[in-house]
Amino acid sequence: MTMRRTISVFGATGSIGASTLDLIGREPDRYELLALTGNTDPRALAQLAIEHRARCAVIADQSRYTELKEALAGSGVEAAAGAYALIEAAQMGADWTMAAIVGCAGLEPTLAALECGGVVALANKESLVSAGELMMSAARRSGARMLPVDSEHNAIFQCLAGSDIADVRRITLTASGGPFRTWSREDMARITPEEAVRHPNWSMGAKISVDSATMMNKGLELIEAAHLFPVGLERIGILVHPQSVVHSLVEFQDRSTLAQLGSPDMRVPISHALAWPDRMATPCQPLDLASIGRLDFEPPDEDRFPALRLARAAAEAGGATPAVLNAANEVAVAAFLDRQIAFLDIAAIVEGVLSGYSGGELTDIADVMDADRAARDAARRLMESVKA
Amino acid sequence: MTMRRTISVFGATGSIGASTLDLIGREPDRYELLALTGNTDPRALAQLAIEHRARCAVIADQSRYTELKEALAGSGVEAAAGAYALIEAAQMGADWTMAAIVGCAGLEPTLAALECGGVVALANKESLVSAGELMMSAARRSGARMLPVDSEHNAIFQCLAGSDIADVRRITLTASGGPFRTWSREDMARITPEEAVRHPNWSMGAKISVDSATMMNKGLELIEAAHLFPVGLERIGILVHPQSVVHSLVEFQDRSTLAQLGSPDMRVPISHALAWPDRMATPCQPLDLASIGRLDFEPPDEDRFPALRLARAAAEAGGATPAVLNAANEVAVAAFLDRQIAFLDIAAIVEGVLSGYSGGELTDIADVMDADRAARDAARRLMESVKA
Repeated sequence: MTMRRTISVFGATGSIGASTLDLIGREPDRYELLALTGNTDPRALAQLAIEHRARCAVIADQSRYTELKEALAGSGVEAAAGAYALIEAAQMGADWTMAAIVGCAGLEPTLAALECGGVVALANKESLVSAGELMMSAARRSGARMLPVDSEHNAIFQCLAGSDIADVRRITLTASGGPFRTWSREDMARITPEEAVRHPNWSMGAKISVDSATMMNKGLELIEAAHLFPVGLERIGILVHPQSVVHSLVEFQDRSTLAQLGSPDMRVPISHALAWPDRMATPCQPLDLASIGRLDFEPPDEDRFPALRLARAAAEAGGATPAVLNAANEVAVAAFLDRQIAFLDIAAIVEGVLSGYSGGELTDIADVMDADRAARDAARRLMESVKA
Repeated sequence: MTMRRTISVFGATGSIGASTLDLIGREPDRYELLALTGNTDPRALAQLAIEHRARCAVIADQSRYTELKEALAGSGVEAAAGAYALIEAAQMGADWTMAAIVGCAGLEPTLAALECGGVVALANKESLVSAGELMMSAARRSGARMLPVDSEHNAIFQCLAGSDIADVRRITLTASGGPFRTWSREDMARITPEEAVRHPNWSMGAKISVDSATMMNKGLELIEAAHLFPVGLERIGILVHPQSVVHSLVEFQDRSTLAQLGSPDMRVPISHALAWPDRMATPCQPLDLASIGRLDFEPPDEDRFPALRLARAAAEAGGATPAVLNAANEVAVAAFLDRQIAFLDIAAIVEGVLSGYSGGELTDIADVMDADRAARDAARRLMESVKA
C-alpha cells in the first residue's frame, strides 16, 4: 500500500485547480486534501471542499467569509478568509501543493509553501517571473521540490529526468507564434481585441491570449525557464512551432535532443506533477502523429514580436526588472483590451517603462510589490502620452 | 578522478567500431582498451590496436593470424585468431563491450560478453533478432546491462530513462519509409538494385539499404524492440517519418510522449552508450529544427511493405521463427542484389519460407544456427521456383 499524500490546492476554483481536483478525484484513496483556496466564489469553493473532503477552505476575499462559513455549515470543513489565512493554509505543510492562484496574490502563499519544504506544483506565473530569485532561494533553503505545470516547463522537466544539468547544451521553448505569426507589422498595427483573443491551439483567458498574440507569454516563460533550469540564458532559445505538439526540447552535450509531446490538455502536465516521480493514468487524448501528419518549425521574428527581446533583456538584468516587465505588460494588455491603445503599443509601453527603470534588487515580496506598483504607474503615465 | 573503464570493441574495423574508437580516442584517459577484434583485415586491426594501446587484437579469420602477428610485432599488443579466440576475448570481462560484429558471427562473442555481466552496447542485429530470447535471459542471469546502439532503440532507451516500464502505454519506432515510400506497388515491381541502395537519409551498406527499401529493417527493429522493452508487441507501433529526425517515441500512461531527436549520425547513440549513465561531448552536428522547417508523419502501408507484417508475425511466434525470417531475408536480398529475383520477390520469399516453417524453440546458439541454415536452404529452393 502506498502512503496517502496530503495535498493543498491554491486557486482551486480556477481552471488549473479544477483539473487538479478532477485528477485527484480519480484516485481518492491516494490523496488527503488539507486546504482548498479560492478568490471570490465561496459557494463553488465550499462545494469543492465538501466533495473532496478537505480539512479547510480559505476564501481570499475577506468580505465573503460569512457566505463561505454558511455554505460549509455541518460539513466538518473549516472556513477561513483573507490574505493571512492563505499564508497559514500554505504553512499547514502539505506533502504536495498546487500553487495556481492567478497574479501577484499568489506570491506570498507560494513562498510560504516553498518555505515548508514539500513538493510545490507551480502554475502561478508571477512566482517565477516577478519573484523568481526569492522563490528559488526559498526552495534551496527548505529543500522544497518545485514542479513546473506550464506545459513548456513541464516538458523540459520531463526531458531532463535523471540528467545532470551540466550535460545540457540547449533548452528550446516552443511557441505557437499566436494568431498573428504570419502577419506583417503593418497589419499588426490594426489588430483588434477580438482578433487577439482567438488562440489557435489552446483555449485560454483574454489576458493570456493577448500575451500569446504578442509572444510576451513566451518571453515570460523564458524568464521562468531561466530560474527553473539554470543553464544560462544564452542556452535557452525559442522556436516557433504552430501546431503546439512539441512542448519543448532539451539538447544534451552529446547532441542528442529529447522532446516532450502531447495533446494541448493541461491535465497532462498537471498529472505529471501530481504523480511525480511516478505517472498516473489520465483521460487525455493520446497523441496521434500519423493523423496530425505534419509539424512545422521556424525561428521567431523579434522585429514583429519585440516582447521576446524585451523579456530576454529583463531576464538578463534580473532583480526586480522582470517584475517591472510583467506589471507594465499587464497594464498595457488591459488597456489594449479596453481599446485605449493599439496592439503594437503593448510592447512599446513595456519597452518605455523598462528604459525608464534603473533596476532594483529583490530581498522580499515587498520589493516585488514596490516594483510592480512603480511599473504600473509608469505604464499609465506612458499611456497617457500615447493616447494624447 | 573517475575510474578508468575497461573496454573491448568487437567489430573494431567496421563503421560502428570506427565511430566507437573515434569517440574513445577523444577522452583516452577515461578508457583502457582490452580487446579489439576484426574480421578479415589484420593490418587495419593492428593499426587500431596499436593506436589505442589495446591489450590484444583478435582476427576472426584464422588464416590471417600470421599477418596480424607480424603487424603487431614489437607493439606489446597480443595477437589471437579464430572463433574461439573471439569468445575468449569476450570473456576477458571488460566493464563495457561494443558488440558490433556483423551477422551471425557476432552471436557467440556477444552472448559470452553478456554472460560476464558488464555493460554491453549492442550493434549486432542478429543478437536480438535471431537470438533475442537467449541474449535477454543471459543478461538477466548475469546482471549484464544491454545498451542498444541502433538509433531507434537508443532513442527509446533515452526516452525511458528512469521510468517504470509499467508506465509505458506505447512505443513508436519511426521509419524513413525508404526511397520507395510513395511508389505504387506496380512501380515497385520494377525497382533495380541501384535504386534500392540509395537511402534518403543515412549512408549505409547495400544489404541494410535494401532492408530499408523493403522496410524489413523496421520489421527487424520491431523484433529487437520487443525484446529490449517488454511492453507487449501490441504496444509497439511503427510510424513513417521521412526526415528521420525523430528517432523514436514513447507514450506514457498519462498520455505524455517523449521523443529523442538528432542528426543522422551514429556517433550520437554510440556516445550515449559509451558515456552512459553520463553524457559526453561529441563533434556531431546539433539539430536545427528551424532550418529543417518541417517534419512529416504517416502510417506505414503494410500492403506495399509486407515485411512489416511478416516481422510482426515472426515476433509473435517467437522462438526460432525470427531467426528464420532474418535468414530467409538475407538470402532473398542477396539474390535481389545479384539480379536473380525482383524487388517484390524478397518479401514473397520470406513469406514463403515462414509459411513452410512449423516453429522451433531456442535453447542455445546451435538452435539459431540450425534454424538459420534450414531457412537459407528453404529460401534457395523457393527462389529456384520463382526463377523457373
